[in-house]
Formats: sequence, structure tokens, C-alpha cells
Amino acid sequence: MKKLIVASTSTVHGSGYLEYILPTLKNFFKEATTILFIPYARASGKTYDEYTSVARKAFATIGKEVVGIHEFDNPKDAVLKAEAIFTGGGNTFELVSQLYKNDILPDLTTAVENGTPYLGTSAGSNICGVTMMNTNDMPIVYPPSFKTLGFIPFNINAHYLDPNPDSTHMGETRETRIKEYHIFNETPVLGLREGSWLEVNGATITLRGSYTARLFKQGKEPVELPTDTEVNQYF
Amino acid sequence: MKKLIVASTSTVHGSGYLEYILPTLKNFFKEATTILFIPYARASGKTYDEYTSVARKAFATIGKEVVGIHEFDNPKDAVLKAEAIFTGGGNTFELVSQLYKNDILPDLTTAVENGTPYLGTSAGSNICGVTMMNTNDMPIVYPPSFKTLGFIPFNINAHYLDPNPDSTHMGETRETRIKEYHIFNETPVLGLREGSWLEVNGATITLRGSYTARLFKQGKEPVELPTDTEVNQYF
Repeated sequence: MKKLIVASTSTVHGSGYLEYILPTLKNFFKEATTILFIPYARASGKTYDEYTSVARKAFATIGKEVVGIHEFDNPKDAVLKAEAIFTGGGNTFELVSQLYKNDILPDLTTAVENGTPYLGTSAGSNICGVTMMNTNDMPIVYPPSFKTLGFIPFNINAHYLDPNPDSTHMGETRETRIKEYHIFNETPVLGLREGSWLEVNGATITLRGSYTARLFKQGKEPVELPTDTEVNQYF
Repeated sequence: MKKLIVASTSTVHGSGYLEYILPTLKNFFKEATTILFIPYARASGKTYDEYTSVARKAFATIGKEVVGIHEFDNPKDAVLKAEAIFTGGGNTFELVSQLYKNDILPDLTTAVENGTPYLGTSAGSNICGVTMMNTNDMPIVYPPSFKTLGFIPFNINAHYLDPNPDSTHMGETRETRIKEYHIFNETPVLGLREGSWLEVNGATITLRGSYTARLFKQGKEPVELPTDTEVNQYF
């Protein structure tokens, strides 16, 4: 059975890396000793080693080992044999490019379908959707496709931001961008605010954290989904 | 000789469409009766007709006709025969997809090299760079390439935004995104604030408007370029 945590962000304001969600992760990863970390999104341009150290330090506080996928000769094998998987945030275009380059999308699917618990934050959550088309990231590399893992039947907009009524900036709001997306695409989008996450158990998808999430469907007005409810009923 | 205006935005806060730049455009387009409008970026999802009407209304105030490229049977021919060209903002991914689909990139190059005056705003400015890799837009369609027109020897980040020291949002700042870009790419990037534009006359590129622009080069600290100076000397 699929077991996922799909989080908007790794870090909430004024708190350490993963700190807000560590109590949840302690339980989520309770069967695992070692977590396979996928650092391909290279948050803030960190090297794979640097980024893996950040994850290692956070998970050490709940007694888990972390090993980077780049430390293995065969990344496909590393995914298939992992006790648990965590894909960190950063740039979704680079992450997706590396997933294709290393050909690990089918292995991630196999592992997750076999019940390997998977945690994604930000870019690592975007790839759980049908496509990466609702990332906020800059297209700094050209991936071979925008198609992603489809662990959930919709797309994620991580770090969802409400329009700021005081802003004088004329760039598009997040909502405008997602509405433009729905001119060309049917797949629904869930805007996950920082501090929110989805808990996926098989076909059951529950919104967790302190905030509502904003659901965008083609041709419909967006709606706010309450926390601690099964969001799968809306799809 | 190349003649371009490459503007950060069509609209500044509290003012009408193109209003802040119309006095400049009146002079820039002084030889043209009719401006060919390229509405492919579909700002806010407008149809080509709707979007062309917005441009038509603005240019009517300075006595110019506007015709949409979609009104022609042969868009390549429309570009080559245009007296003047304006590509509006919206979604850069969709704009670039349509430029490739309609195969008008070579024609835009020919027209601009022959001296047809070209105005770009936002997405229409991004495509003047070497690639579209510094757009802020959401990847709502998958273009066949990120390569763009290269009318200027660097990329544009339109609607450039300084980090907000009061923000509690954990998404990447614009500067962080551009620094991540330079891990993978060499081409410099100019962050153009809303209300700024570049005036290109052949090889001379002058920053205009009320603000400095922020220049990012690989491996260097970003620098602020003063307005009303030739920015080509920095490349």
C-alpha cells in the first residue's frame, strides 16, 4: 500500500529544517533504520554531499540514518532496496531532469507501490503529482518531459501563497498562474500552504497541518479544503 | 540596425496598460502606422482577440493601428512585412511554444535585423534573451526548447523583485533562483524592475526608467547598473 507524506515545505518560518514535521516523521518512518535521500533538486545550489548532510543532521534527531542516492553506484538499485525514501526541495526542473537521466522514475513507482514510505518536500512533492507544471521554480534546465510520478491524481502547488492585497507588484498572483494553467490542462491542482502536508495511505489522502488547502479545478471556482479531512473525496 | 524596447512590464502599479511608456513608444514607433501584435502569451488567459483589443486601445491613444498576428493566414509573412512588432506578456512557456509551432523565430530575427522596431513587455522581453530560462512563469505547457531569440547577449528576469526582509515565506527569493541558474548556465541575467526598460540601438543597450537594474554573472556578486547608462559595456 502506498504510504506518502507530501509536504509543501521542508522548513517553516522561524524553525529548523524539517523541525515542524519531525514528530510526524518519527512515526511515519518507524519501520526504517536508514532513509535514502534524493538530493537532485540541490536546494540553494548545494552539492549533493552538502544537501545530504542537512537531511542527515535533521533525521539524526529522531534516530534515523540518511544516505544519499549519489553515494550508490546504481541509483535504480538504491531506490528498489531502500527502506524509506526522502526527496528534498530545490529546483524542480533540475530534479526532474536528474530523475530522467538516472532513469529512476519507474523504480520510484515500484518502490512506492510496494509500500516503501516516501517523503517529499516542495520539489520532492511536486513530482508526486501528474506533472510538474505547477512548480514555482525557474526553468534553469530543460527536462526531457514535465510528466512526473502521478502518485496522487492531481498536481501540487507547493509554498502556496495568497494574493497580497497591499502589493504593488504587477507580476501574476499564484491564483492567476494556476487559472492560466487550466486553460491548457485538465488535471486539478492543490495549493498547499507552508506547514501543510498530505498523508497518503493507499487511495486515502488526508490534509494535515494547521491550514486549509486551495483546490483548483478546470472551469470551477477554487475552494478551500479543511485540514484533517480526506481530500480524495474531492477528486 | 536593431531597434528594440525590452520592458520589464506592460503596466506599472496604479496606471493603465502601457501608460507609463507611451510617450517613449510614440517616438519609438514614429515611422509606423500599424503595429503587428503577437498575443501568444495570452496574459491572464485572454483570447488572442481579447488581448489584441487591449493593445489596440492603448496604441489608439498615440494614433497607431494594431493588428493581431492571428488575423493573418500566414504568420511568418505577417512578421516579415510588419512595419513594427509588439509581443505582449503573459505566459512565456505558451508564448515560446507558439513561436516554435508557427515557426516565426527565424522571421522575427530577420525582421529585427532589418530594422523593424520591436517592443517586448514581460514574456515578450524574455524572448529577446538567449534563453527563456529566467522567466518567473509557471511551466503550464512544454515548449520544444527554452532557446529564444538572442537579440541581446544575456537573459532577462522581468518584474525583478528584491527580497522582502519582512516576509515569512520560505519559497526561494528571485536572487536565489538566479544564483541556482548560474550553477548550470553561463549566460548573464539582467533583473529589470517594473518601470525599467532597455533601449537597444544596434549594439548599444541603454537602461531607461526610474530604477537601477540588477546584473547577475556566473561566479560574481550581483551589481546594480545605474539607469540611463549603456549596459552593453558590462557584457
